[in-house]
Amino acid sequence: MEEQTQLEEATPEVQKRIQDSFDRQGLMSHLGARIAHIGPGRVHIVLPSRPEVTQQHGYFHAGATSAIADSAGGYAAFTLFPEDTDVLTVEYKINLLSPAVGDHIEAVGTVLKSGRTLTVCRLEVFGVQDDRRNLVANGQQTLIRVNRTER
Amino acid sequence: MEEQTQLEEATPEVQKRIQDSFDRQGLMSHLGARIAHIGPGRVHIVLPSRPEVTQQHGYFHAGATSAIADSAGGYAAFTLFPEDTDVLTVEYKINLLSPAVGDHIEAVGTVLKSGRTLTVCRLEVFGVQDDRRNLVANGQQTLIRVNRTER
Amino acid sequence: MEEQTQLEEATPEVQKRIQDSFDRQGLMSHLGARIAHIGPGRVHIVLPSRPEVTQQHGYFHAGATSAIADSAGGYAAFTLFPEDTDVLTVEYKINLLSPAVGDHIEAVGTVLKSGRTLTVCRLEVFGVQDDRRNLVANGQQTLIRVNRTER
Amino acid sequence: MEEQTQLEEATPEVQKRIQDSFDRQGLMSHLGARIAHIGPGRVHIVLPSRPEVTQQHGYFHAGATSAIADSAGGYAAFTLFPEDTDVLTVEYKINLLSPAVGDHIEAVGTVLKSGRTLTVCRLEVFGVQDDRRNLVANGQQTLIRVNRTER
Repeated sequence: MEEQTQLEEATPEVQKRIQDSFDRQGLMSHLGARIAHIGPGRVHIVLPSRPEVTQQHGYFHAGATSAIADSAGGYAAFTLFPEDTDVLTVEYKINLLSPAVGDHIEAVGTVLKSGRTLTVCRLEVFGVQDDRRNLVANGQQTLIRVNRTER
Repeated sequence: MEEQTQLEEATPEVQKRIQDSFDRQGLMSHLGARIAHIGPGRVHIVLPSRPEVTQQHGYFHAGATSAIADSAGGYAAFTLFPEDTDVLTVEYKINLLSPAVGDHIEAVGTVLKSGRTLTVCRLEVFGVQDDRRNLVANGQQTLIRVNRTER
Repeated sequence: MEEQTQLEEATPEVQKRIQDSFDRQGLMSHLGARIAHIGPGRVHIVLPSRPEVTQQHGYFHAGATSAIADSAGGYAAFTLFPEDTDVLTVEYKINLLSPAVGDHIEAVGTVLKSGRTLTVCRLEVFGVQDDRRNLVANGQQTLIRVNRTER
Repeated sequence: MEEQTQLEEATPEVQKRIQDSFDRQGLMSHLGARIAHIGPGRVHIVLPSRPEVTQQHGYFHAGATSAIADSAGGYAAFTLFPEDTDVLTVEYKINLLSPAVGDHIEAVGTVLKSGRTLTVCRLEVFGVQDDRRNLVANGQQTLIRVNRTER
């Protein structure tokens, strides 16, 4: 994907911190999702099409679409947090715009506003087939920063 | 769970229609979810705890919590639809209130308003450990009825 | 309304704190809204019908419906906060279920979950005509507690 | 505002249809709001600062912010509808990102997806003071098209 070669990359330390956390999410590997990009305030997650992630008509299940959207937003927020903090999803809202079809779907989480306590992200999910990218879901998410010592 | 023995059951035809659709959702069986109750305008879905449905701290992943909440609401709406129709999620919003822990989680979808075209559901997810039920997520969902001949 | 005579009242101190804050909201008096009940974790706000609060078909405007719903939820959260704190709305989501008609509308904000930093409320708005109450809007809201010294 | 001189304008017929509908919204004139731009799939609404639209700290009330955001999105959708139809808000979700301060606030509604029955809009509200525009609220809205003969 040519677009991604132009995206700004996060520092190696941040990339490692995000990837390590992602690798501990049992659900992401169980679904078959992987991180495709880690930039400052922006993370992409890709989920290939397979029968295990479908709903009753064979499209990607809204739950799978949402799961990678939620993770993409959470990690986008996390790229801007200091060390020794954690990120938790407070809430999100997502519109399923079109049937989610394609060779794979790609969730893009982008920080809209990064505050001391709360972060707000935009969530987008694209269905990708060959060269075509179609916006299949669009959402908005609120996250909270938690200091590890407070937990 | 004693509570459920007092819940009103949907007709056998409706129960079969819901269960058949659920069984075609690859994601639900891949996660290990099952339907626990089908009533008119109300469906419960249970997801047992296992490493495949966790986030990085070992709790249920918000994506898994949302996936069964979305399905519970969708099928709750579907119980009130005529035959030869389908249900699609338009959008939903969910607050993750507490870390989702327990032996299993249980999503309850309840129809708040059933219109000709649109249905609105309340979504609740409980973390269940032994006798304790703790509300871990609460949401609201909009669904649309689609006539099969129109698709 | 008989229902309200059975509702638990907040302490006089809390009632005064809420009413004083409400009286400083220019928008509420400009719309013609008033507080109808202040209980612990629950506040009702009433808005009488008048041309100044309508949309193009003569129903209550979604903006007026939302405004009193947002205030009802915010003050419901505020009833449970300690002194020397403030409440801010983080976000809310609301479904407009039916045309908002009636002699007046009544918003009910109810705390679902009260945390140290964040509170989540249910928002309901009823259209009231004589003895009939019809749920015209239903929503969910996230609020944050702010210590006055931090501001 | 220089930006607006570059925005595409809707046809005069569409502009008239939107303006006429807006003028019938009692709430908008009561708040003091006015339409600042009508383009295809995009509408801007401006609300000047005045005590009648504030909350308890003197900022714009979330209800006022939401009211013009909801109207901007609704009219953005309406620009793309055929004649003899109406638009109704199904639901919206809005994050209040920063205290809404400024000489005026400006809501921008933009159509993200226009379907046969449902339209999804992005809602943005900016606090404007002299040359500075600050995003104070961001949301997402679902609308439904209604044929006038069906009502």
